[in-house]
Amino acid sequence: MNLSEIGEFGLIAHLQKGLETRAGVQIGIGDDAAVLESLQRPIVTMDALVEGVHFRRDWTTPRALGRKAMAVNVSDLAASGARPVAAFVSLALGADEMVEWIEELYAGFEDAAREWGFSVAGGDMTRSRGDVMISVALVGEVLNLARGPILRSGARNGDVLVVSGTLGDAAAGLALLQTPDIAVSDATRQKMLLRHHEPTPRLHLMSALLEIDADAVHGALDLSDGLAGDAVHLARRSGVSPQIETGWLPISPQCREVAAALNTDALDWALAGGEDYELLLALAPEGVETLLLETEKRCGVPLAIIGKCGAQGEAGPRVRILENGATRQTTRPWTHF
Amino acid sequence: MNLSEIGEFGLIAHLQKGLETRAGVQIGIGDDAAVLESLQRPIVTMDALVEGVHFRRDWTTPRALGRKAMAVNVSDLAASGARPVAAFVSLALGADEMVEWIEELYAGFEDAAREWGFSVAGGDMTRSRGDVMISVALVGEVLNLARGPILRSGARNGDVLVVSGTLGDAAAGLALLQTPDIAVSDATRQKMLLRHHEPTPRLHLMSALLEIDADAVHGALDLSDGLAGDAVHLARRSGVSPQIETGWLPISPQCREVAAALNTDALDWALAGGEDYELLLALAPEGVETLLLETEKRCGVPLAIIGKCGAQGEAGPRVRILENGATRQTTRPWTHF
Repeated sequence: MNLSEIGEFGLIAHLQKGLETRAGVQIGIGDDAAVLESLQRPIVTMDALVEGVHFRRDWTTPRALGRKAMAVNVSDLAASGARPVAAFVSLALGADEMVEWIEELYAGFEDAAREWGFSVAGGDMTRSRGDVMISVALVGEVLNLARGPILRSGARNGDVLVVSGTLGDAAAGLALLQTPDIAVSDATRQKMLLRHHEPTPRLHLMSALLEIDADAVHGALDLSDGLAGDAVHLARRSGVSPQIETGWLPISPQCREVAAALNTDALDWALAGGEDYELLLALAPEGVETLLLETEKRCGVPLAIIGKCGAQGEAGPRVRILENGATRQTTRPWTHF
Repeated sequence: MNLSEIGEFGLIAHLQKGLETRAGVQIGIGDDAAVLESLQRPIVTMDALVEGVHFRRDWTTPRALGRKAMAVNVSDLAASGARPVAAFVSLALGADEMVEWIEELYAGFEDAAREWGFSVAGGDMTRSRGDVMISVALVGEVLNLARGPILRSGARNGDVLVVSGTLGDAAAGLALLQTPDIAVSDATRQKMLLRHHEPTPRLHLMSALLEIDADAVHGALDLSDGLAGDAVHLARRSGVSPQIETGWLPISPQCREVAAALNTDALDWALAGGEDYELLLALAPEGVETLLLETEKRCGVPLAIIGKCGAQGEAGPRVRILENGATRQTTRPWTHF
């Protein structure tokens, strides 16, 4: 069945059946606007996935795509020390779109909503003349009201820089999609593709960190554009000069395997690959080792110290990427234009 | 200058200078997420404008387009008895987009923010392979906390149906864009084009109504798809059967002039034209005349009684459109697919 057969309102009513309204939402889909329960520190993020730019339909299933459209927004809230409450989706679709594809996309939205405890509460659906566009706005609440939101601007001179998980996996997954005949093991292929298609926002990790020692978490952001570029955002907003030791970056053996098969440096992916959706954290240096061990124990995600924040010099905040003591030239960070 | 010359982050920093952060927003553009002041009854709406579907670039200025992208969302909140606090924009643009065009679009966003008292507080910017897509999420708060939000589901048997302003003007404006050589007066042309390009969400009107007699306002929605279709939403959500007298519909002389020049029935535009962004209200019958007079006096927008809500029959809620006592066949309401 295609869209013109079922119609806009028929489809919305149909899709709504697969969506659960969870705590925090009073009135969801079906009115002019959605009504939420009171929010003490509301926090909002918005990120879109566009066909041909962020995804190709022959590379992903609609279900994984729907989950990812939500996950990238949950990641922004997690980095801000917040939990998601209600998501809104603006969907642009060609008129000949198959209803089954859209159903699977929505099943992916609901997978994410169930996994991270929010509701898909509204949005709109419109025609496009070409590509599918999925724009998501996610409304949440600050996890620790006393501590407040965690900002890009909170890093201080002397802070320890930490990243979660491993870096470069999403880029390795993308490389496998672009060059499917690379000779790597099946397990490696599967794991790297999963890291590309199904990123895990570090919501539980941030939540654990804040529970253990909220005051130690000075600043954070999520790694969507690649460490080298994202560190610049932290530097500029905080007025510090981060120094990153490439030898300390957590890179998975699977990522190294794919890079080796392509004669590429895995370090380039770790620095500039983007889409890992891991956290970059600026933490107080006192007791940081204990904090990391405690947090790892509670949420199972490894945390690695990758450098520190220095004072900014006269030229302003600068990011230094060091390799064996010397400054490394990095590839240009991801930009849309 | 085009987008690839200035880059994504350069452009965002540049555009941000033209945006004012108003009350209600603690941290706006520049972090992973925006942080708002506490909201007692948060309310959220989301609506997109897509090139080639909702607008043509040769028919509108980017500034009017930016204002309209916000206005259609403010209209949804107004219909829900809420005021806007913070807007988020997801923008998809071709890489060869001119920076000047985007600046004007943002100037239009800020026009709307100033006019209705909210802040553009975040969003994202991404590349598209073709059309421009402007997706807006608007977060607001219920105006009258004791009364709560005004819903599509609130209309009751016996309620009086009222619309604000005049209906069909936006369709007349669209007809003038599609057939520019229609012979109508300059004043008519100007007014109808303005009604198409620069709709006025009825925020002040709803605010006045709720101040005068909040309990009398049972249900509401904004007319974006056309009265005939939108009345069906009210009927279904409320379980009532609206009866609309076509002879009572407020149609402007300018709309009639354009329709006459095209040998079209202005009534068709009023019923199915869409994009008028007027309010359809279900009001308590007691003292309704006084309420309407008081409200008109306070906000200057005419209000017209156009029918009433009857009980739903055995077949469920039905909309009846009456012309000289007989049921009128209406044209099919607007649908995207």
